[in-house]
Amino acid sequence: MTSFVYRRQMVIEWGHCDPAGIVFNSRFFEFFDHSTWLSFDAALGVKPAELARTFGVFGIPLVDARANFLKPAKFGDTIEIASRVSEFRRSSFDVEHKITLDGELAVEGGETRVWAARKKDDPEQIGAIAIPQEVIARFR
Amino acid sequence: MTSFVYRRQMVIEWGHCDPAGIVFNSRFFEFFDHSTWLSFDAALGVKPAELARTFGVFGIPLVDARANFLKPAKFGDTIEIASRVSEFRRSSFDVEHKITLDGELAVEGGETRVWAARKKDDPEQIGAIAIPQEVIARFR
Amino acid sequence: MTSFVYRRQMVIEWGHCDPAGIVFNSRFFEFFDHSTWLSFDAALGVKPAELARTFGVFGIPLVDARANFLKPAKFGDTIEIASRVSEFRRSSFDVEHKITLDGELAVEGGETRVWAARKKDDPEQIGAIAIPQEVIARFR
Amino acid sequence: MTSFVYRRQMVIEWGHCDPAGIVFNSRFFEFFDHSTWLSFDAALGVKPAELARTFGVFGIPLVDARANFLKPAKFGDTIEIASRVSEFRRSSFDVEHKITLDGELAVEGGETRVWAARKKDDPEQIGAIAIPQEVIARFR
Repeated sequence: MTSFVYRRQMVIEWGHCDPAGIVFNSRFFEFFDHSTWLSFDAALGVKPAELARTFGVFGIPLVDARANFLKPAKFGDTIEIASRVSEFRRSSFDVEHKITLDGELAVEGGETRVWAARKKDDPEQIGAIAIPQEVIARFR
Repeated sequence: MTSFVYRRQMVIEWGHCDPAGIVFNSRFFEFFDHSTWLSFDAALGVKPAELARTFGVFGIPLVDARANFLKPAKFGDTIEIASRVSEFRRSSFDVEHKITLDGELAVEGGETRVWAARKKDDPEQIGAIAIPQEVIARFR
Repeated sequence: MTSFVYRRQMVIEWGHCDPAGIVFNSRFFEFFDHSTWLSFDAALGVKPAELARTFGVFGIPLVDARANFLKPAKFGDTIEIASRVSEFRRSSFDVEHKITLDGELAVEGGETRVWAARKKDDPEQIGAIAIPQEVIARFR
Repeated sequence: MTSFVYRRQMVIEWGHCDPAGIVFNSRFFEFFDHSTWLSFDAALGVKPAELARTFGVFGIPLVDARANFLKPAKFGDTIEIASRVSEFRRSSFDVEHKITLDGELAVEGGETRVWAARKKDDPEQIGAIAIPQEVIARFR
């Protein structure tokens, strides 16, 4: 478990909500994705779009995503998203996201991602590579 | 495990894809949601929008969603989504979604949903109610 | 032309962008919609979700939307959106949105919306009603 | 005005709709975008993803998009989208989209797009190039 936690607040938009007046589930996965990029930005001091150039990665593709919806969020609500890399492995890592609303846990999310690069012998192919120790160190 | 499987094919759109040229993860949760509604439509013979009126439910809110991404889908790809209610419990149920591309499994998804109605003593509140046996029977 | 201008900055997300690496057009209409709600919030001092309750409106449905795309915005770019109600008529109004990137105009957008309420004799129907003078005054 | 009209039917999804229970405006721009790609697919006999390879274009970026919303579409509604290239110019073209619901016009949309290629002297830059006559001929 790393100790670096990235927090942001956001206001639920009209366009995030469905006919039941609550956030449509796919939107939470958009929120998680952006929070993961922002976490790396904050921890590494590198803008998301430059992560690739700086660390030689092609991207951080998702291999698994999951969420529990405990309490609905509605148009105009201010939510807080707290994101933390819960585990770094050789070439993959897990991110935990907790969304709170009025101080109560509303959504718990999780992602598993891969540190991926273009293959040297076939740049059309993408494969997992080892996550640099200097990247992991920034989240400690 | 019910035996009714709902299948549909769809073409990946330009707007579904991200800068890596593959479907952005949140889109799969949109695909799953629509397939679940279509499954109920096909099994019950009731248009999604009329499910509420016919069965007295307010909706089928998600309490859990998850997906494994095994193989990327790209702009123009034709995918097949096969959806099956894997378990009915008293007032909740699980749906399994399998997306295949060129005959290979590309994404495995799962949802847990609640059969929900407005509370009689407080219509502003939504609560889980028992799923009618006639609904369950249609998926056998 | 009213004088009240609502400005906000936002960072372009990975999920906003298409395989060409630039913001997919429909996203700009999401940005415009949210900026219009935020403009009313800022001008009226009423949270978007309470606009209906405070002013007896059902909503501010769009009847027309348009955009010119002059310069692409990419993942990680910080854009500024400046929004202004350009004209109030009896029961409809126009909103102008200007998105700038690095000080240059990137997208020009426009919306025409209606001030709408449920009809007294048939609450299932929505119709345009006169915009209160106190609302218009707050944008001067 | 070309004579080739591309038509498709689609069912409005739960996730397309907003808290007013009607299709959120940005979704229509997604529908238009996909219909334009499908029009080219149908007229040229080339899958969207191969348009670039076959005709040497990088893409068909939007420079202008617009829509009038005449009649709301709701969850479960079946709409028909009829799309036609209304004018080809040297390196740009206009597409008209008409969405009907129960035989009545619900949304009128328009797009202006550019036939674009990577610049030979600077492949990082994209510029408009002449639309091949063989492309235009297929829409007559």
